[in-house]
Amino acid sequence: MTTSPALGRRDRKKLETRAALSAAALRLVAAHGLDHVTVEQISEACDVSSRTFFNYFASKDEALIGGDAEIGQTLEMFRALPAGTSVVEALRLAFVPVILQMEDHRETISLRLRVIADNPQLLPRLLATGVESEMAVAAAVADRLALPPDHPFPAVAAAVVGAAFRVALMRWATEAPGAHPATLAKLADEAFDMVASGLTEPPLRTSLQ
Amino acid sequence: MTTSPALGRRDRKKLETRAALSAAALRLVAAHGLDHVTVEQISEACDVSSRTFFNYFASKDEALIGGDAEIGQTLEMFRALPAGTSVVEALRLAFVPVILQMEDHRETISLRLRVIADNPQLLPRLLATGVESEMAVAAAVADRLALPPDHPFPAVAAAVVGAAFRVALMRWATEAPGAHPATLAKLADEAFDMVASGLTEPPLRTSLQ
Repeated sequence: MTTSPALGRRDRKKLETRAALSAAALRLVAAHGLDHVTVEQISEACDVSSRTFFNYFASKDEALIGGDAEIGQTLEMFRALPAGTSVVEALRLAFVPVILQMEDHRETISLRLRVIADNPQLLPRLLATGVESEMAVAAAVADRLALPPDHPFPAVAAAVVGAAFRVALMRWATEAPGAHPATLAKLADEAFDMVASGLTEPPLRTSLQ
Repeated sequence: MTTSPALGRRDRKKLETRAALSAAALRLVAAHGLDHVTVEQISEACDVSSRTFFNYFASKDEALIGGDAEIGQTLEMFRALPAGTSVVEALRLAFVPVILQMEDHRETISLRLRVIADNPQLLPRLLATGVESEMAVAAAVADRLALPPDHPFPAVAAAVVGAAFRVALMRWATEAPGAHPATLAKLADEAFDMVASGLTEPPLRTSLQ
């Protein structure tokens, strides 16, 4: 990659603005309700114009749900990994940048889960984002393995890895504060290990391992 | 199990009535819209009373979404399997009765997907059913392996197997009629094999297998 330090800073600033807009949207909606928060208010809370807001998100709901930028980043990483890396290993590594970013925004992610639970009107968009992400990962897996479009492996791999990551994410984001301060990186690694092992029963049962 | 042939017939009739009520609910909602169909109309279409309807479903939405009976049946089968059977293998076998039943109701299942897509108000209930099922499977896995409640394996196993089954089900239910007449049993088997292998790349790539 030929990212100059200057561009690196600009990209980082962009990610920060995006994260700030998401966090403000969630905070405002948690406080005032989905129908009582406008794009103008979210933008004002971050001291940017609505026009700037729309450079990052197409709608208020998108700012609340997120997802698109994360999956783009994950796929870029996935495609950059050498062909010799297995699919599970490549997916595991591809999640690392997003995981590290999420570690810095645990509160926002917990708040997002609460806002979604309180506002089921957001579910269609959440599900649509989930389906799109899964299809994008499946397409990248099919590309990597040069599989025909109707081969079932890419869709299963995308769904399974996504499910394992979701379990790790939920565990991490909903843990009582201070209870078990496991990092998302550790929990995700554990879950990916289980997938890579074909769900081999954990040591407690087999006693030797 | 001490099921007498008479009870067998009664259970079968119950399953048939349940399936008929679901199918009628979906047909009526597809034709007239979610808000224009009542429990009375669904019951009438199956020539039973509303009281009988409520023996099977707590609400119209439940009749449209289903799920509870299927997961109950799957868990009963799972618990009946000998301890020597691995978790993935036990889950694979536990899905068999429900899969065979679904094979007989492909049209209803396709219609359900269409009705859900057309009526996003059903999504909260669909997701709640999904979460409940996954938690019930995770609890059964934890029981089987005598794992402590905070062990991550059961939740990951339930989510991963559920995701693999969902991919197989979507593929089977949305296939163009007559295109590739694969059975759900075959597609689910394929998906479970991928999970059990730890998502090993398919033969096309490794060339020997």
